[in-house]
Amino acid sequence: MTTTEIGRRYVALCREGKRGEVIDTLFAKDVVSVEAVAPPGADRTAKGIEAVRGKSKWWAENNTLHKAELSGPYPHDDRFAVRFVLDVTNKQGGERKTVDEIGVFTVVDGKITKEEFFYPVG
Amino acid sequence: MTTTEIGRRYVALCREGKRGEVIDTLFAKDVVSVEAVAPPGADRTAKGIEAVRGKSKWWAENNTLHKAELSGPYPHDDRFAVRFVLDVTNKQGGERKTVDEIGVFTVVDGKITKEEFFYPVG
Repeated sequence: MTTTEIGRRYVALCREGKRGEVIDTLFAKDVVSVEAVAPPGADRTAKGIEAVRGKSKWWAENNTLHKAELSGPYPHDDRFAVRFVLDVTNKQGGERKTVDEIGVFTVVDGKITKEEFFYPVG
Repeated sequence: MTTTEIGRRYVALCREGKRGEVIDTLFAKDVVSVEAVAPPGADRTAKGIEAVRGKSKWWAENNTLHKAELSGPYPHDDRFAVRFVLDVTNKQGGERKTVDEIGVFTVVDGKITKEEFFYPVG
């Protein structure tokens, strides 16, 4: 698949809520996931597909997603960007908020090898 | 200025239509501007602040901008992203369309040294 095709597949699966399938089918084994800021008790960078699965599991366990609005993919060479606007409640704090962020994904040999999330910090 | 401050300034000036001031005050002399695809009769990559000024002038001469909606900045380390939704008419063809793209900007020593535009090609 081309970078654009992988981007389209990524967006389609995310819209269907199939995050597990995104990781299983589109991510490279050595994928690296980098946040703009470190999540509570974790590093900014998760290395390897198992770490990314763990991060995804942690997110789902700690948040209720009411609605996800994705725009994209926006391709550029071996990368594509996606904008996410998420309506989400943190299960612990009970706070409902809008998460507005951009992900930039790098594709090598037909697999996503890096995801980088851009959003305001603090 | 930090990357976030430069991003905020970039977005504020763009919202005011001050593209010239963006280039004069925020861009490095050796800034590089990279499109997802080559514009008609030009290279994908414009190198240097004069080339970027020329590109900006060419765009303004060839397009009528009815409305620009910017989201961001979305910072990540030494980069920030911005989403642009532009309502624009090409002066030659007369076609009015929506341009939806994401720019990723790299900051070095308080100046933007690279802008990369992400959007669907073809």
